[in-house]
Amino acid sequence: MPPLRPSLRLIRALELPHSYAPRRTFNTRQFGTTPRCKFDDPRKLDPLKEWRNPKPSKWGHRIRLWVVTPLTMAIIYSIITGDKPTETSLEGPTIAEKDALLKRENGVTTDSPMRIRMESFIKAQQKEIVSALEEVDGSKFTVDSWQRPEGGGGITCVLQDGNVFEKAGVNISVVYGRLPRAAIQKMRVNHKALDPSVESLEFFAAGLSLVLHPKNPMAPTVHLNYRYFETADEFGNTSAWWYGGGCDLTPCYLFDEDAIHFHNSIKSACDKHDKGYYPRFKKWCDEYFSNKHRGETRGVGGIFFDDLDETEKDQEQLFSFVQDCLTAFLPSYLPIINRRKDMPFTDEQKQWQQLRRGRYVEFNLVHDRGTAFGLNTPGARVESILMSLPLTARWQYMHVPENGSREERLLEVLKKPKEWV
Amino acid sequence: MPPLRPSLRLIRALELPHSYAPRRTFNTRQFGTTPRCKFDDPRKLDPLKEWRNPKPSKWGHRIRLWVVTPLTMAIIYSIITGDKPTETSLEGPTIAEKDALLKRENGVTTDSPMRIRMESFIKAQQKEIVSALEEVDGSKFTVDSWQRPEGGGGITCVLQDGNVFEKAGVNISVVYGRLPRAAIQKMRVNHKALDPSVESLEFFAAGLSLVLHPKNPMAPTVHLNYRYFETADEFGNTSAWWYGGGCDLTPCYLFDEDAIHFHNSIKSACDKHDKGYYPRFKKWCDEYFSNKHRGETRGVGGIFFDDLDETEKDQEQLFSFVQDCLTAFLPSYLPIINRRKDMPFTDEQKQWQQLRRGRYVEFNLVHDRGTAFGLNTPGARVESILMSLPLTARWQYMHVPENGSREERLLEVLKKPKEWV
Repeated sequence: MPPLRPSLRLIRALELPHSYAPRRTFNTRQFGTTPRCKFDDPRKLDPLKEWRNPKPSKWGHRIRLWVVTPLTMAIIYSIITGDKPTETSLEGPTIAEKDALLKRENGVTTDSPMRIRMESFIKAQQKEIVSALEEVDGSKFTVDSWQRPEGGGGITCVLQDGNVFEKAGVNISVVYGRLPRAAIQKMRVNHKALDPSVESLEFFAAGLSLVLHPKNPMAPTVHLNYRYFETADEFGNTSAWWYGGGCDLTPCYLFDEDAIHFHNSIKSACDKHDKGYYPRFKKWCDEYFSNKHRGETRGVGGIFFDDLDETEKDQEQLFSFVQDCLTAFLPSYLPIINRRKDMPFTDEQKQWQQLRRGRYVEFNLVHDRGTAFGLNTPGARVESILMSLPLTARWQYMHVPENGSREERLLEVLKKPKEWV
Repeated sequence: MPPLRPSLRLIRALELPHSYAPRRTFNTRQFGTTPRCKFDDPRKLDPLKEWRNPKPSKWGHRIRLWVVTPLTMAIIYSIITGDKPTETSLEGPTIAEKDALLKRENGVTTDSPMRIRMESFIKAQQKEIVSALEEVDGSKFTVDSWQRPEGGGGITCVLQDGNVFEKAGVNISVVYGRLPRAAIQKMRVNHKALDPSVESLEFFAAGLSLVLHPKNPMAPTVHLNYRYFETADEFGNTSAWWYGGGCDLTPCYLFDEDAIHFHNSIKSACDKHDKGYYPRFKKWCDEYFSNKHRGETRGVGGIFFDDLDETEKDQEQLFSFVQDCLTAFLPSYLPIINRRKDMPFTDEQKQWQQLRRGRYVEFNLVHDRGTAFGLNTPGARVESILMSLPLTARWQYMHVPENGSREERLLEVLKKPKEWV
């Protein structure tokens, strides 16, 4: 069972602008630079101010001017002259153009296409999560927003070397583009609704992902990603759609109560929708987030799923499920980080954390197919893809924890995943 | 052109014993343990003592007892009774058995099979290199020797957290085994002498590899690997053989004189054998050791080659070439490390080194096909494969060096490899 299908790979690869030219292409909101790191002291200024209160968009006007007007003109011209419409006019507006128009004219309602609702949901969640984490850390995130020339873009929020977090990233990406035939055929394995005869298909992908690496070795790393994927036929109608995602916890020192609380929170969110979800997606998570070369899972798991489409449940039900999973995140993690962030620790414990960080790097660079696919995609935004890596990591030849130590206990659990609830 | 062919992948995967059970399977020569790292203070004792003066081997006697005697008995039995010999007796002794017998009876001479000569050469080189590096560092390597149940084994020499080296590994492996049909067919692309009709083939692989990560950010990391690969037909005769290897330098701060000296040393070794080797293998090195996702080479290069067989030059000539390359290592690197190891540096420079270490990890875990193949091989010796990773590394979101800085200069050279000689 391949747990990670093209949908996730694509969203990772497409988190990114067309070419890798960060200083030219990106709109990094910076308010000063330190000599080496180019980050300002985030405590002094609020980089989210503009993000929270954006200027009115000029896109509605631009789309009317560049897209709707020429299209209408072309159709009228073809009716008058009897000329065959040009290929451009035949194709009609892209879903990116349609969505931009819809958002401008109607805003976001429950009648909006799922694309717009998902985008709006993850944007709101990003703000809420960033704001809650800033309160925990006492420092502010740096906000990088970027656009893809082909449509869509993303917002990368990073907190580096904070008070509580060594590195924290909360990103969203909302991407429009075209899938080539080869990609369609791969996706068809899991989505029979896709038409294999077409040369290419428009697609939409939106997701929120976060990774938090705390400083204190007693506080666990956490990772989350929820995403929605959709393709459109030549008339701009949805041809296939699905959800994927999950959330998992990676402690360096195991506190059973943390793992139990984390899994309980996720299970509650799952159980509201299907009693079979939690056991099924918990197993999938243990299988996927595994450093197979070491025979260890990355951490104590959580849930993982992909390709949930109409063969699973209807779109409204799955959206509601993903919403509940995502909104369960803060209550699942905040009590843990608050309990652990100020615990005393020794230099040896910090060093063990660094070794476990090394294992995290191993999983992300060796096994995570999303990362591999992203890095092998020309023009991918490497810094967004690798934001999941910790600030620091360590590799020590033949390190073996002492018999009966807490470090050994963790390894035992990672070698044989437990049922926490 | 795929620069790394199955031969290197195989040697990495087969550096290792059959099952991953380090404490049970390995003979780690340790003389005390610290609570966390299990390494003794290497300055007090000489872990190489036993290695340098090994006890007389009991294998000659055992092979005669277990292999030669039963084989002779079976042949005599079949002659007397007219019985069809068993499959085992038909197959004859393996090359591992033949080599053990030859070494016991004749020692190592220029008439010995290349397998034995290569083994003897890399063993001697390992001792010489380890001894020279101990002199530079002022501390001793820890020596791990291990055996594969299928035949052969290796010696892993590691120096961790020394005075000069953050992490240094000098390993040899000498491995006998059987190649399955699928592997033979892949190798046949480059070695037409291989018989594609057989179910399996005996093989032999021997190599020396080293990676040195110095502490001082002014001193460059260096990597080297030279290897010999051979297959035997059902009668134990050589059916195909080839050499591969290379050596490359990875500075964090660029000193042109270091890069020039390093390349000059390698070029001299190459030029003695073929004026075309250095330019050809220098280019191959720049192409292979590249973090393609960042558009940067790993370092300032050196040479890299693979699959050099009878279509290139005869076996004696190629062995002599590989010998010259390997013996050129110490003169190519010692002057550099001696010049740089005590240079003053700032905290910021140490941090830049840590970021460059992160790039080293990225190459080894994302792009190095030998590492990937090794890690995906069940039962591989993970600690030997990942010994190439630095002790510590760092990832910082969107780090950009200052305009006109030395850090920026390095990136420019990595983005556009230079001709150093």
